[in-house]
Amino acid sequence: MYDKSNQQIDKLATFSDTPAPSVTRILYTDNDVAARSFIRELMESAQLTVREDAIGNIFGRWQGSEPSQAVVASGSHTDAIPYAGKYDGVVGVVGAVEAIKALRRAGFQPKRSLEAIMFTSEEPTRFGLSCIGSRVLAGDPRVAVSLANAVDEDNITFTLAANRAGYDEAGDNLQSVAVGNETYAAFVELHIEQGPLLEEQGVSIGIVTAIAGPASLGVEFAGGGGHAGAVLMHLRNDAGLAAAELALAVERHVLESGSQDTVGTTGMVKLYPGAINSIPRNAQLGIDIRDIDGSRRDAVVERVRATAHEIAARRGVVLQNFTVVNQDPPAQSTDFVIEAVKEASEELGLGHKMMISRAYHDSLFMARIAPTAMIFIPCYRGYSHRPDEHATLEDMANGVRVLALALSKLSSN
Amino acid sequence: MYDKSNQQIDKLATFSDTPAPSVTRILYTDNDVAARSFIRELMESAQLTVREDAIGNIFGRWQGSEPSQAVVASGSHTDAIPYAGKYDGVVGVVGAVEAIKALRRAGFQPKRSLEAIMFTSEEPTRFGLSCIGSRVLAGDPRVAVSLANAVDEDNITFTLAANRAGYDEAGDNLQSVAVGNETYAAFVELHIEQGPLLEEQGVSIGIVTAIAGPASLGVEFAGGGGHAGAVLMHLRNDAGLAAAELALAVERHVLESGSQDTVGTTGMVKLYPGAINSIPRNAQLGIDIRDIDGSRRDAVVERVRATAHEIAARRGVVLQNFTVVNQDPPAQSTDFVIEAVKEASEELGLGHKMMISRAYHDSLFMARIAPTAMIFIPCYRGYSHRPDEHATLEDMANGVRVLALALSKLSSN
Repeated sequence: MYDKSNQQIDKLATFSDTPAPSVTRILYTDNDVAARSFIRELMESAQLTVREDAIGNIFGRWQGSEPSQAVVASGSHTDAIPYAGKYDGVVGVVGAVEAIKALRRAGFQPKRSLEAIMFTSEEPTRFGLSCIGSRVLAGDPRVAVSLANAVDEDNITFTLAANRAGYDEAGDNLQSVAVGNETYAAFVELHIEQGPLLEEQGVSIGIVTAIAGPASLGVEFAGGGGHAGAVLMHLRNDAGLAAAELALAVERHVLESGSQDTVGTTGMVKLYPGAINSIPRNAQLGIDIRDIDGSRRDAVVERVRATAHEIAARRGVVLQNFTVVNQDPPAQSTDFVIEAVKEASEELGLGHKMMISRAYHDSLFMARIAPTAMIFIPCYRGYSHRPDEHATLEDMANGVRVLALALSKLSSN
Repeated sequence: MYDKSNQQIDKLATFSDTPAPSVTRILYTDNDVAARSFIRELMESAQLTVREDAIGNIFGRWQGSEPSQAVVASGSHTDAIPYAGKYDGVVGVVGAVEAIKALRRAGFQPKRSLEAIMFTSEEPTRFGLSCIGSRVLAGDPRVAVSLANAVDEDNITFTLAANRAGYDEAGDNLQSVAVGNETYAAFVELHIEQGPLLEEQGVSIGIVTAIAGPASLGVEFAGGGGHAGAVLMHLRNDAGLAAAELALAVERHVLESGSQDTVGTTGMVKLYPGAINSIPRNAQLGIDIRDIDGSRRDAVVERVRATAHEIAARRGVVLQNFTVVNQDPPAQSTDFVIEAVKEASEELGLGHKMMISRAYHDSLFMARIAPTAMIFIPCYRGYSHRPDEHATLEDMANGVRVLALALSKLSSN
């Protein structure tokens, strides 16, 4: 990628709720809105025709010579979880625009239109639901109900948050966001690997053949609470200790699956009232379980559910909530898109390897409505969702070159 | 207690950061400052001479016929942990003023001066240190250093917070708060039991012979963090799971002590970044361990410390912090003060029982500089630090009557 793109990535990183080098950019906050303006301007300065849908997915299109043909698209997201880094998602949005600019500079004329996309809220931070933009775009049948019931931790609804960010039709006109199966001829997402393999093996390009499916669980235990000094141990029903046991059970059940492709994480635990001299009377957990094998993952989810009931019964707490927030199937990439990326890598003399994505991406949902593949580039030590997340200029430039060449092949078919 | 006192308790409950029936009143916040004004006015309307020291301990004195004699005092606190109730502490402050008013109404003339006290920040909510007011008043040798280093979760120092609340000399003139051993001839604190025994046994008055000593620990684990999908299980060092193990170890080590008087609680756990799709790279715990036997409690603290090191080594996380925030010795009540309360109960025909306090109180520190005892009254199911904390008007009235009579006896000696 060119120096200019790195400036763009650095500029985007300044739209953050937390100090550098960390980046925190949560859906529909002021910094998210500022990043959206920046992306629209970036697309306009690249002479793309910009469209924004009712929930803020942003599309920049370069019209092809056959505009009635299905479009070839590339994109990712710009939102960032608390205290994350500046490359996750951003490389795929800025990179899509850069790839299109490079093709234009090279005198290329696309047959199919080419489109750069910025998806709304790939991260589940604010409303507990991941990939809101691509999920709605792909016509996920359950997403409307999920969003209608979604509130953030300040009890603000998804619709109100969208309205405040300027998306007045996010509630009433959600169905307008979905596009049909005929819209996209192919979708390619450029992304940092978020794992260590490419860097360790000295390979420039990863070609993603499958994306692991995530399941997200929301769990709540309620106990009696009380004073940390006054209530004897045998009279307690401590919701916090129930949560501690469940977090350890998630790890145990994942390891019992026997496959290294199964992973599980308890990334959120909140205790109430959360005072050092008060027994937790309420504990909320956010749990993430993934696998490239959907049924193996779902078996872990059911073991975690059974253990949550067992813990509640044994500790005399109430399992107030055990919600499967989402349980998305894994996705397979499409052969001809994989092939286009592979040929591009080979023509550019860049080493590549086939791999799976353990992290999910907007591609997980785009794969439902379009032939899809992903391009991975190395990142420092595989770090991601951390302030020290890093990709080199050279690796980003390689990714953009492969993306541009693959898009040119796909748009000519 | 009289209807008027209940109105005062209800009025105080309106100074809260959270909606009724919960009460949240944190040191030096606007609601804490409002409660302080209310208490000063209450004391003034009872014709007491009001004094406030550099950190906001408030004293209302009824001068005795021998004002050079050491004073007899009673009091408690009005701060409340998040989502607590309206009786903890408040009954002992309002009750002290009511007891003095009752004595005045009865035509009593004290020989020793009588004093009602509201102590600053008995709860450790804001700065992690309990009983700040009584600790400083009693000349705790380590408190100045603790307060000089204390910051709240917004990184505001104790001194700045005090200054903002109008206590301009809290930093420079902390030593002016301490009073000597000669100041108080006796101290009696009225309080709800915060345990179920009096209610269960139908006894009106508990007389506290000893107060369990609390130890507070601040613990922090740091791990590698990373993406919840991308990092394989065997490559993780999850700070959140280390915290979960330690919380369960606190419970285990407490139960191993073999005494029902040993209790331990992990009331605070904070994970960073705290996102569902991110492995916790940092976990902070607040742990409280108590016993009426100081050495048995300290043995549990040391076992928890050893286990924290063992967990860190096994999970490949760093034990970034293991701080004993306080480790106060238990306190014994003084016989002649116990005797005064016992005689008062008997003269009023109220059943009483000797008991220990598992919760700590400002009396734990007042006992270092004054002969001390406590009066407990029943509370609903032993609930405390909860919105449904409750004491009946009749039980409060009985407590105030016993307190008034005990104060009259002590002030005449």
